[in-house]
Amino acid sequence: MYIGIDLGGTNIAAGLVNDAGEILYSASIPTLKERHWSEIVKDMASLAQRIIRESGYNIKDILAVGIGCPGSIDKKNGVVVYSNNIVMDHVPMSEEFRKYLDLPVFLENDANAAALGEYACCGENVDSFVFITLGTGVGGGIILNGKVWSGFNGAGAEIGHQSLVFNGKPCTCGRRGCLEAYASVSALIEQTREALVEHPDSMMNTWVNENGKVTGRTSFECAKKGDKAAIEVRDRYIEYVAEGICSIVNVLQPEILAIGGGISREGDMLLNPIMEYFAVNDYNKHMKKTDIRIAKLFGDAGIVGAAKAAEAGLKQ
Amino acid sequence: MYIGIDLGGTNIAAGLVNDAGEILYSASIPTLKERHWSEIVKDMASLAQRIIRESGYNIKDILAVGIGCPGSIDKKNGVVVYSNNIVMDHVPMSEEFRKYLDLPVFLENDANAAALGEYACCGENVDSFVFITLGTGVGGGIILNGKVWSGFNGAGAEIGHQSLVFNGKPCTCGRRGCLEAYASVSALIEQTREALVEHPDSMMNTWVNENGKVTGRTSFECAKKGDKAAIEVRDRYIEYVAEGICSIVNVLQPEILAIGGGISREGDMLLNPIMEYFAVNDYNKHMKKTDIRIAKLFGDAGIVGAAKAAEAGLKQ
Repeated sequence: MYIGIDLGGTNIAAGLVNDAGEILYSASIPTLKERHWSEIVKDMASLAQRIIRESGYNIKDILAVGIGCPGSIDKKNGVVVYSNNIVMDHVPMSEEFRKYLDLPVFLENDANAAALGEYACCGENVDSFVFITLGTGVGGGIILNGKVWSGFNGAGAEIGHQSLVFNGKPCTCGRRGCLEAYASVSALIEQTREALVEHPDSMMNTWVNENGKVTGRTSFECAKKGDKAAIEVRDRYIEYVAEGICSIVNVLQPEILAIGGGISREGDMLLNPIMEYFAVNDYNKHMKKTDIRIAKLFGDAGIVGAAKAAEAGLKQ
Repeated sequence: MYIGIDLGGTNIAAGLVNDAGEILYSASIPTLKERHWSEIVKDMASLAQRIIRESGYNIKDILAVGIGCPGSIDKKNGVVVYSNNIVMDHVPMSEEFRKYLDLPVFLENDANAAALGEYACCGENVDSFVFITLGTGVGGGIILNGKVWSGFNGAGAEIGHQSLVFNGKPCTCGRRGCLEAYASVSALIEQTREALVEHPDSMMNTWVNENGKVTGRTSFECAKKGDKAAIEVRDRYIEYVAEGICSIVNVLQPEILAIGGGISREGDMLLNPIMEYFAVNDYNKHMKKTDIRIAKLFGDAGIVGAAKAAEAGLKQ
């Protein structure tokens, strides 16, 4: 069994995960990310100890701890080279963690960890798997030959930072026109806001008044009820996503590509038009095609994936 | 030693290649691609036999034959699943070839083979390497963990078919706005043609009259002499290339990325602005960066790479 820890900007979530990738017990605490990193690591270790204790197991039952952490990770040395979400600069996280809990510790980038989690859950023993998350940003992870591929330097799999619109909207990364600037939930909210101004009669205005704010669901919900402006926003957004997926498939041709993140809860409403787009626009017309599907673990991907990163680390 | 065969739409080029990836002897014959594939394969085998004979070696000195072939390849079974350049549909090429020459035969997609060739020549023992060719189209190959990655189905590494301009120019693949539609030599020629019409006073008009036609060199040559319209064409073209390279690096973070194809003969004129663009726009700001360089083998990459595909095939 493993402990998987998902270190997020808001919460630290952790769980006891068995070899089958099932969470047997989990808990979470606030990250309070403004404090010094050493305090955060101390709390992570306490949380892990608490989970082992409360679940009725013993430290001897745990083979290793995996930590999914935002930012650029030096996996070999267990160091967070840089993170700007939770501010960290060359933080020896694994070493610090082991001061409190004497177990092997393995660090992985949080998006790669989530990909490992989804791979464990819905990878069905395929060798190649891409996970794309449509969340605040667009991120993901790449599994090739059964292992995380994140570049020679660990900085790869930035799926959201492919070009989509040459010289388009500014992206958080400093470039213009990245997929993230069009296909993230933040981008969808912006696209919805623009449509609200352009179409004051749209049902979306009522929806926003009733729900208190514009969200990633606004256009999807109103489109279901037939609102024309909402359908336009939703369909164009899905086209952005489909274009991005098509680009990544043309380059990597993974056996499965799973879509996660908040928007993926729309299920077939999101998936079906992507599949239609993909059937026509995929470069590959003669070989077996990538299986595109909705991911399964949602919020649990980080915990399961961190545990899977620990398992992979032990095997190396 | 290996025989590497580069099956092109115009010529079949083949060579005797040693373990160090050096071509010891080579020759080529016209493909005459309109004839039946079995005649082409027969000629390929004759050419291989001729090379062995003329180079003073014996068939016993050859460990295996590699064939770099356009189209979708089923490597495992040595079958060309589909090619529209030289028309082939489920052609059992390896089996046919062995009717004439009793040696192990390994098939590889031509772009992947070229990547293997460049990797052997300038990969310097790195584990990850991307080769991008700026030719009639934009193609390339991906080497990860020292091996060709072309997807679970062999149809991957279509680097030219990432989005660059959303809803942009039609691409040969049927989609719109692919990198190939902006960064290929064909695209550069089209961009030059448009500028010739727009700027009848440009030096490029004189150049075209003197050289008989518009080529990929037109804008580069006239830009060197300070022609404003030519500088504009060249710089925008390089920006397209740099954007595409940036996208592929953000996803794969290979240790080396080598640029080949006709335009790569421009050397630093092409490379320097790409490096400048990349230094600013690469997503990776905190880890070691991909080394971007001009490829070395030019026309020989296909032969060397096919030989390297044979070597890799034997090892499996």
